[in-house]
Amino acid sequence: MSESRIVTFTTDFGLSDPFVGIMHGVVLNVHPETTLVDISHAVPSYDVLDGAWTIAQAYRFFPPRTVHVVVVDPGVGSARRPIMVETDDYVFIAPDNGVLSLVEAREPKFSVRHITSERYFLQPVSQTFHGRDIFARVAGWLSKGVAPSEFGPEISDYVRLQLPVVEHIGDNSLCGEVLKVDKFGNLITNISAQDAPALFGTSTPTFSLLIAGQTITRLCGSYAEGGEEEFFAIAGSSGYLEIAARQASAAEKLGAGVGTAVGIVIEKAKVVGDIVSPITPVGDWDAPK
Amino acid sequence: MSESRIVTFTTDFGLSDPFVGIMHGVVLNVHPETTLVDISHAVPSYDVLDGAWTIAQAYRFFPPRTVHVVVVDPGVGSARRPIMVETDDYVFIAPDNGVLSLVEAREPKFSVRHITSERYFLQPVSQTFHGRDIFARVAGWLSKGVAPSEFGPEISDYVRLQLPVVEHIGDNSLCGEVLKVDKFGNLITNISAQDAPALFGTSTPTFSLLIAGQTITRLCGSYAEGGEEEFFAIAGSSGYLEIAARQASAAEKLGAGVGTAVGIVIEKAKVVGDIVSPITPVGDWDAPK
Amino acid sequence: MSESRIVTFTTDFGLSDPFVGIMHGVVLNVHPETTLVDISHAVPSYDVLDGAWTIAQAYRFFPPRTVHVVVVDPGVGSARRPIMVETDDYVFIAPDNGVLSLVEAREPKFSVRHITSERYFLQPVSQTFHGRDIFARVAGWLSKGVAPSEFGPEISDYVRLQLPVVEHIGDNSLCGEVLKVDKFGNLITNISAQDAPALFGTSTPTFSLLIAGQTITRLCGSYAEGGEEEFFAIAGSSGYLEIAARQASAAEKLGAGVGTAVGIVIEKAKVVGDIVSPITPVGDWDAPK
Repeated sequence: MSESRIVTFTTDFGLSDPFVGIMHGVVLNVHPETTLVDISHAVPSYDVLDGAWTIAQAYRFFPPRTVHVVVVDPGVGSARRPIMVETDDYVFIAPDNGVLSLVEAREPKFSVRHITSERYFLQPVSQTFHGRDIFARVAGWLSKGVAPSEFGPEISDYVRLQLPVVEHIGDNSLCGEVLKVDKFGNLITNISAQDAPALFGTSTPTFSLLIAGQTITRLCGSYAEGGEEEFFAIAGSSGYLEIAARQASAAEKLGAGVGTAVGIVIEKAKVVGDIVSPITPVGDWDAPK
Repeated sequence: MSESRIVTFTTDFGLSDPFVGIMHGVVLNVHPETTLVDISHAVPSYDVLDGAWTIAQAYRFFPPRTVHVVVVDPGVGSARRPIMVETDDYVFIAPDNGVLSLVEAREPKFSVRHITSERYFLQPVSQTFHGRDIFARVAGWLSKGVAPSEFGPEISDYVRLQLPVVEHIGDNSLCGEVLKVDKFGNLITNISAQDAPALFGTSTPTFSLLIAGQTITRLCGSYAEGGEEEFFAIAGSSGYLEIAARQASAAEKLGAGVGTAVGIVIEKAKVVGDIVSPITPVGDWDAPK
Repeated sequence: MSESRIVTFTTDFGLSDPFVGIMHGVVLNVHPETTLVDISHAVPSYDVLDGAWTIAQAYRFFPPRTVHVVVVDPGVGSARRPIMVETDDYVFIAPDNGVLSLVEAREPKFSVRHITSERYFLQPVSQTFHGRDIFARVAGWLSKGVAPSEFGPEISDYVRLQLPVVEHIGDNSLCGEVLKVDKFGNLITNISAQDAPALFGTSTPTFSLLIAGQTITRLCGSYAEGGEEEFFAIAGSSGYLEIAARQASAAEKLGAGVGTAVGIVIEKAKVVGDIVSPITPVGDWDAPK
């Protein structure tokens, strides 16, 4: 037994049903002292990549020992396994479908267990709501102090997600895509500081960014800096390049969305530094201390 | 005085106004150590039946002594009474309009009080926001340890909701309706294991289910088991039969919704077991231990 | 060091992105014992006036010493300052854009600091998400017991918001406007008990209210009191006059919304009492004890 923990939830359950409240209840039923936090329940239905992006954006801002429950689970009730992942600072609970692949990309330690100890499940387990019967319940027991090793054996053949890659064409051109549209209509791309360091530095590069038939040549330091009728690029708080418009939805005005291609040519600066992996690490530069 | 409690909220207030945050504040103002959980605030405006279904789905997953506040209250400010209900494990606070009728259907103990002790209200009480001035405030005092008997006298003439019943026609036919459409577009019916045990067992029955002009003959064990362009039935995690489509909205594809009739004929199996009540008990088979 | 605190959040971030969950994580990372409450994240994007109204409705219902974080921040990353405000009972953290002006209107003490102590920020500070890097982080340190004076110097040249005023024409006529439409379609005006005491009292005045081409002459004590096809006025729980319809959206039926003008002529009663300020104080009559 050890101190209580924080448990977070990231799902595609939405807030129109009692699903999320029920998961909270299940955790508290095992361990009433747990602190519960909702990261997001607005992952689009069955969208494992969006879920992967969402948890990768958020998990590092929580205290060490936090348990992150991620349920985007089109395979619920099928043979897909429930897994538990330990990194240096956190524990994750999720279906084995790649939803933790963007976490894996930035963690030196990523050890995976198949959750098999049914005595920690809510019995009988339904075939349609493992978020309640397995994932939340296991999180409750973890919060209460049960050791990860109690839940099942380590595995190495877990599922890895195919992630959209940034293609580099020569030294100064690259091609990525839009990963996410946020609430303000900002288009968040998969292009990171590792892909295009010139766009994330302190000096202003000369570049052309092509998206949805529009050419953008301005990099702003803040949203407020943009002109009234202008599209501009900006180094987003997520560690990825964004395309934005001032107090307006760039997505709507450009007719762009998730999957829209983004091409960049940078003048007078080499684009490519040391690209370690096709998976884009999420902004080390803004990690909490 | 006794230990602190968990307080949950189920309302039709939505999240676009500060109503829910204000209720949280009112509880914490009385007893800052309370743990607050939102079950759902997406009950359709004034829809007492949907509220009844929502709280009935969720309440059992919380620890004993949890206080459940349910505010779907078209009669706010009128003569309708505020009530407090004690069951073996929980306390409920709600307007007296039948919103707890599905809880009553499954609880052996269901003792009701008229909340009359105005010293536990936020004064002066507004005529439009009893969620703040009465229900949340009373929940705060309960959480702080005030005994239920302090809030008012027991009553027996409380309101019971007229619930949609499942009609049985002979031994192998029945007719129910859609109670709820969930976020994924699954159609949750009012047909429970008590109504049609053959559809909730381990063997596969031969049956025909008619909904919105479509005939469904397949019962799947999980959503993932369904074919690409197929509708299928499934024993849902709520304890009710659902109609679903694989990674798609059955509601949209069928043009069906709350109130749509569902007819079932089951071959080679008797439908009717021991039907105790026209009110459908909510899935004992998945109750937490 | 002193006891733990409650931290609330009011933003225009919505719930479709992980922004809110990340802010919760940042606070807990500094001080895991903090109790977090969401007041609303549905302030329309960049709408400082709506944000001002939302926090003014909610803040008084929380326990003394609560820290209220308000982030409606079109100027994020520009020269606009982050500020901390102390009132008799609460501390507020917000951008310096007037979003606290309606709080100022009702608080005898309102002392403002420019938050300048960068050692309490998440480093390096992004230019697009001060909610995470400055506001939530500072709230965490406050919750942990750091004194307000540690965060920066007092200032007096903070921004005050231009608020929509109620115009009084003679002794018995006044003209206001719709401030907010709530989830039920009720139209909340900026006309308070101070503006029109006759409409907030116990006797029934004779009056004509003109909105969107309709004349309303009925004042109801509760929503349920209204007739089936009728519009009526009501003294709302927020301390402002509302226009409502019974179990229907007055906003939709009238084609009215934020900014719609509202004219009132009151017979047999003087409208104007002692109007102290063009800023409408928020309902003292329903303040918690």
